Amino acid sequence: MQGTDPTSSQPAAYAPTDRTVPTRSADRASYDRELVHAILDEGYVCHLGFVRDGAPVVLPTLYGRVGERLYVHGSTGSRPLRMTGKAGPGLPVCLTVTHVDALVLARSAFHHSVNYRSVVVHGLAHDVTDPEEKRIALDALVDHVVPGRSADSRPADKKELAATAVIRLDLDEVSAKLRTGGVNDEPEDLALPHWAGLVPLRKGYGTPVPDAGLAPGTRVPDYLTAL
Amino acid sequence: MQGTDPTSSQPAAYAPTDRTVPTRSADRASYDRELVHAILDEGYVCHLGFVRDGAPVVLPTLYGRVGERLYVHGSTGSRPLRMTGKAGPGLPVCLTVTHVDALVLARSAFHHSVNYRSVVVHGLAHDVTDPEEKRIALDALVDHVVPGRSADSRPADKKELAATAVIRLDLDEVSAKLRTGGVNDEPEDLALPHWAGLVPLRKGYGTPVPDAGLAPGTRVPDYLTAL
Repeated sequence: MQGTDPTSSQPAAYAPTDRTVPTRSADRASYDRELVHAILDEGYVCHLGFVRDGAPVVLPTLYGRVGERLYVHGSTGSRPLRMTGKAGPGLPVCLTVTHVDALVLARSAFHHSVNYRSVVVHGLAHDVTDPEEKRIALDALVDHVVPGRSADSRPADKKELAATAVIRLDLDEVSAKLRTGGVNDEPEDLALPHWAGLVPLRKGYGTPVPDAGLAPGTRVPDYLTAL
Repeated sequence: MQGTDPTSSQPAAYAPTDRTVPTRSADRASYDRELVHAILDEGYVCHLGFVRDGAPVVLPTLYGRVGERLYVHGSTGSRPLRMTGKAGPGLPVCLTVTHVDALVLARSAFHHSVNYRSVVVHGLAHDVTDPEEKRIALDALVDHVVPGRSADSRPADKKELAATAVIRLDLDEVSAKLRTGGVNDEPEDLALPHWAGLVPLRKGYGTPVPDAGLAPGTRVPDYLTAL
């Protein structure tokens, strides 16, 4: 992503706004651009929120990042993508990405927690109509799932591009939130006999399962072995 | 959870509503109560959506299930919890839980996907004020993170209970959505030389890291070893 990233002249941090400053645990918030990018680039599934008939809707969906732009795609028939196409100034959305790193087990039930890193992006989603931007966005989506994969698959043809809606959300009103570190028990609880500490969470990949009809001689590519 | 679950007399499925029937891939939707419970019970982090000043907000947070009720907790000062306390009829929310099971790599970029299981719950969140219900909810939250843990920690005292806001969301307007199975490439793409198949995702736990000041003789409990 770095090669295509036009952010070198950008400030090192996003400007906080009313809705990106949390009402509590403000010490856990960060507006650091590199940190935000790193959290976003580690994931590929976000939770996208929008408002329909006055009520919130939160759907899991794939995303990709290109510089200061996030892209989400879907069928042209799906609800948020259809709504974005119809919304003149853009559809108000909130896009959230979360990684959980460890369980935090305290001696007291009250201080149980998890260590996590999340990014919350507020803004207006815009329908991407330019075919070239659409292609770049779709490549980014595929490469978020498996880095290097977009170059090793058949690109979308015109019909597929037309059937795919892509929406863009600029990284502008953005914050990260993190909990790191250990257990925060009350001093008077330290002598309690309950085990306390961190349980790290691990994510990994199983052995790739090839599709039945692979062309003869097709091997597991290096970018998959590298996972 | 089964022992406290008063759902045995409930219908086997949730009734679909306008907003729980997807506009596309309707074959991936399910309203099966047991399936919904299983997906919810496998997780502990949800993404909670609500509307603030007309715009959506999506925050990651811990949750617990007790029968047909979901509970979310937080500081009494945090935004959605404060808003729920003020909202007379309840705060409209959408609570979503997602598990990603495998990456789906197709020969064509267009057919790339992930296998996943998600649950989306729509409804009104209510402030929990009854101390006994609050305790049950907080135990459920802790036990979602580590089954059996609530019985092996100091319960919240009155001051802690007062500082913790708990909101309840009934499982009523609910749907699950799943993608399972293999690659769906176009017939004319099957001979392409690109590797295609599934990459299973694995979640696991690292070695527990004990807090510095554990009481002498405190061992790693069996319910942690069992993870």
